[in-house]
Amino acid sequence: MILENSSDSHKELVQKFSAIVGGENVASTLKELEQITAGLIPERNHSPIAVYPKTKEEIIKIVHLANEQNLHLWTVGRGNNWGYGSRMANSPGNILVILERMNRIHHVDEELAYAVIEPGVSQEQLYNYLQEHHPKLWMDCTDSTPLGSVLGNALERGVGYTPYGDHFGCLCGLEVVLASGEVLETGGGPQSCATFHTYRWGVGPVVDGLFSQSNLGIVTKGGIFLMPAPSHHNFFVCELYNQESLGEFISELRNLMLSGTIGNIHCLNDNLVLASRMPYPYDLRGEAKRLSDEQLKELSVKEGVAPWTLVCGTYGSSLEVFFRRRVVKKALKRFGRVQFFSETAQSLLCRLVLRIDSYDPKSIMRKILTQTLEKFSGHSLKVIRGLTGCFGYQKGIPGKYLVSTAVYYKNRKGKPEDRLTPIKDGCGLLWLAIAFPSTTQHIDLLRQMCKDKFDDYQVEFIAALVSLNPRSMILAMPIYYDKTDKEEVGRVKALYDEVISSSRKMGYLQYRTSVLGMKTVLENSPVFSNLCREIKMSLDPNAVFAPGKYGIETRDKTQDEMTNCHEK
Amino acid sequence: MILENSSDSHKELVQKFSAIVGGENVASTLKELEQITAGLIPERNHSPIAVYPKTKEEIIKIVHLANEQNLHLWTVGRGNNWGYGSRMANSPGNILVILERMNRIHHVDEELAYAVIEPGVSQEQLYNYLQEHHPKLWMDCTDSTPLGSVLGNALERGVGYTPYGDHFGCLCGLEVVLASGEVLETGGGPQSCATFHTYRWGVGPVVDGLFSQSNLGIVTKGGIFLMPAPSHHNFFVCELYNQESLGEFISELRNLMLSGTIGNIHCLNDNLVLASRMPYPYDLRGEAKRLSDEQLKELSVKEGVAPWTLVCGTYGSSLEVFFRRRVVKKALKRFGRVQFFSETAQSLLCRLVLRIDSYDPKSIMRKILTQTLEKFSGHSLKVIRGLTGCFGYQKGIPGKYLVSTAVYYKNRKGKPEDRLTPIKDGCGLLWLAIAFPSTTQHIDLLRQMCKDKFDDYQVEFIAALVSLNPRSMILAMPIYYDKTDKEEVGRVKALYDEVISSSRKMGYLQYRTSVLGMKTVLENSPVFSNLCREIKMSLDPNAVFAPGKYGIETRDKTQDEMTNCHEK
Repeated sequence: MILENSSDSHKELVQKFSAIVGGENVASTLKELEQITAGLIPERNHSPIAVYPKTKEEIIKIVHLANEQNLHLWTVGRGNNWGYGSRMANSPGNILVILERMNRIHHVDEELAYAVIEPGVSQEQLYNYLQEHHPKLWMDCTDSTPLGSVLGNALERGVGYTPYGDHFGCLCGLEVVLASGEVLETGGGPQSCATFHTYRWGVGPVVDGLFSQSNLGIVTKGGIFLMPAPSHHNFFVCELYNQESLGEFISELRNLMLSGTIGNIHCLNDNLVLASRMPYPYDLRGEAKRLSDEQLKELSVKEGVAPWTLVCGTYGSSLEVFFRRRVVKKALKRFGRVQFFSETAQSLLCRLVLRIDSYDPKSIMRKILTQTLEKFSGHSLKVIRGLTGCFGYQKGIPGKYLVSTAVYYKNRKGKPEDRLTPIKDGCGLLWLAIAFPSTTQHIDLLRQMCKDKFDDYQVEFIAALVSLNPRSMILAMPIYYDKTDKEEVGRVKALYDEVISSSRKMGYLQYRTSVLGMKTVLENSPVFSNLCREIKMSLDPNAVFAPGKYGIETRDKTQDEMTNCHEK
Repeated sequence: MILENSSDSHKELVQKFSAIVGGENVASTLKELEQITAGLIPERNHSPIAVYPKTKEEIIKIVHLANEQNLHLWTVGRGNNWGYGSRMANSPGNILVILERMNRIHHVDEELAYAVIEPGVSQEQLYNYLQEHHPKLWMDCTDSTPLGSVLGNALERGVGYTPYGDHFGCLCGLEVVLASGEVLETGGGPQSCATFHTYRWGVGPVVDGLFSQSNLGIVTKGGIFLMPAPSHHNFFVCELYNQESLGEFISELRNLMLSGTIGNIHCLNDNLVLASRMPYPYDLRGEAKRLSDEQLKELSVKEGVAPWTLVCGTYGSSLEVFFRRRVVKKALKRFGRVQFFSETAQSLLCRLVLRIDSYDPKSIMRKILTQTLEKFSGHSLKVIRGLTGCFGYQKGIPGKYLVSTAVYYKNRKGKPEDRLTPIKDGCGLLWLAIAFPSTTQHIDLLRQMCKDKFDDYQVEFIAALVSLNPRSMILAMPIYYDKTDKEEVGRVKALYDEVISSSRKMGYLQYRTSVLGMKTVLENSPVFSNLCREIKMSLDPNAVFAPGKYGIETRDKTQDEMTNCHEK
């Protein structure tokens, strides 16, 4: 039974939470919670209360209260994990614990190149802080919203563009509130140990992984490695002309990554580039359920978009970068045009685009500048705009290109000019991401299976290839959909389940899953999921932390039918 | 009460184990076990039985038997963790499970650069296998015995010389027999998932760290990343002339590591170089408890040994290596002589040393060649011999220099010419290793404290600085001692405890501990050790796996006095 808003027991609870965090930091009306739990995915679970603690001490009290009152807590950093669930729990009835007020940057060590931050610190906030106080250090960012939590993203194993793109891999030293209310420091060392944020493994078993993609504690502080700004870096783009050579291309990229020649790769298919550049052409689609491959192909040709576009960077001293440009060109030129952008070229292009935008759309100066730029660069202004949108990510500068813009693709109301608020604007996005080893054979097999399923369910195949490390990548398929179209929503959900289950049968795992995929994510890993459940039951016997998150239940599903909602 | 050898219950057990692994793979006589449990550290715990399984299936049966019979199992890979405990359990009565017969190399993936091996695979074995079948791949090795287990060392978080020197960090995908007898694959994916050995984090919580420096399962198979052989590499040595500049030197090395210019560093103090080069001068020491600093200084000067000697490598394409040589020289030359050895120089030196050794010690050719070599290189033959001993490690070639030779330092009987068998020969070595952040301040503080303690206990300060990652190092202090000298043994043990407890008070943790240090290793981390205990009790309620290993007990020590031995 779900705790009813404005029932007596609800009121009582709200009071108790207010006593801990202050009344202004508790949301309890249906209207407030409606807004808070709204997201981009096609699912909605109600929460009766949302709490915004500011300190670790408040979290400890919340955890004690949850134990006493038999509550379930669903924790999010800043809740901007668009397309994965945002601030919504995996089942109704969870109390939301939103950590956005815990946004202190405790310490940045310039010499040892790391930061110690709270989970409410956003990408934008950390970036600005570093720019102001430690410009010699780079963070790594995602290409999603600048408002996303740095720690939250790392704990969910987000990935970025620079050599520090494995965000979870860059974590070092977590402070965690356990279900017992105790505060754990990972690493096994004495309290506030000297190497807490410099040597991850510590002594004794390595337990930090237990708090990633799971429900075993609330991380209240964490260290994250930062990259000493390299003296030089270059951005480059490679347009893969031929879909058939994608597999070979991936193998070549793996070798370049293995030798340390290039950083993490992002390779976008034509449909994704289109989605980031234009609103969905509903007119063109007409009565059909989706744009046909031919229609998409035509659009791509018209827009000058290659089947796959690689964006990547290389970092080091001037000589290293100079040398690596040659190596990259030699390795990739057989696949398509490779174009490098030095820092000077990057800043010139960015300034030119800004200048062009500053003119009236019909002004002659704008026309002249645009034509000159297009002739000089060999790209259309649209392409250049897209490229400049990506430049920043290669240096860890959070931006609004790509995910933030493409998320409006199928929105019938279009994209606002100013601040992007896709949740409020009713956009639909569901992330589907499958990991595979970076070989020709695997990408060909996996891509074909996914493409077939997208065809079966009549959804456009929008995809990116993103490296997790030199040996593995994800085939990331952001499913943009029209939330107002019930039929499409149904197809999207069915497609999502189908791709996940088919990849699992083929031996591939999800790199990360959304609230929609959590029930089944560990389905084919009985020993692993048993292990997680045993640990869960021993550390959190009352299941105060998010039961069912990432498939970690507190009881054996086969023995005991799970109840979705929380009973008081 | 310890299970008595040749009692009825002992015989019965031996039969049961024999039924599982075959009688020839069970050791049960006092004499056999005396040999098996012998080690280099000043401690001895008896085991009533040692079992040598060959397969995962046999291990499962052993675990079931241990549960039934209420036995404790102490597992080692090949038991060559010299100075940490070798094959000896942390308390009497444990059944030894020695995995040296599980030595299959299951698979090497040349494209994705990893190997899947069993825990009995030695460094030498893997190296030879790669040389024969996959010469394009390098492994990373330690500077201890070539007979050590690759997986065992990685699980204990051993370190090496190449950029793949963080052995635990290079593990990817473990197969583990749990205390329940279930077989876990880490990573959360479906059985034998495609990214099992290429993407470590998998999906859901990351649990592989639970099986490192702990007692929560028996790892029966594991993936380990290999390094694609770089097209070029250089070895270099830097002799630090001035002890006072060590702190600054460390900061400079950290920066070189952070920028990817150099691989992992090993920096040996004068006493360690001496120990690797000559037998201990007992005559010189006379009646004193140790050699005085002045005596050691004199020896160093005589032998041409600098206060600290850095050995390191740089890897990449020819241009990258060429460029990095310049960067390294520029950064380090103010500290002392920096000398690079190209691959050609390395192979020339190795051949020359071999040639010299092939001549009769008194031959004129030997003299001439030696003099030419010494003049040409600016080093004595002894130094060159030492250097050539290190060349291999920089390319992952297991060798017998350093730990294997120095381990005989204080052995009264000297070092045998041929096969080194330090345990049989009664050598004494106890490893003491404290982790610290790679800054001037930390190394100065920690080194001074340790040096003072070594002075207090009148033990020679033999030390090396080894990088764990660019941000952290260990001050590794191999304590060589004379096993036949009871008074020295007493001092060494007291010194060991004292350094550990003092570093802990200063906020430093042990990077790894020996059987001697396990009881106290988590002493100052109550929440962490509670967490480990909770997990232990839930996964291994009968404590079949090594109770007390790395401080992980099955009950609260404060509530219940631990019994050291096992009751049947």
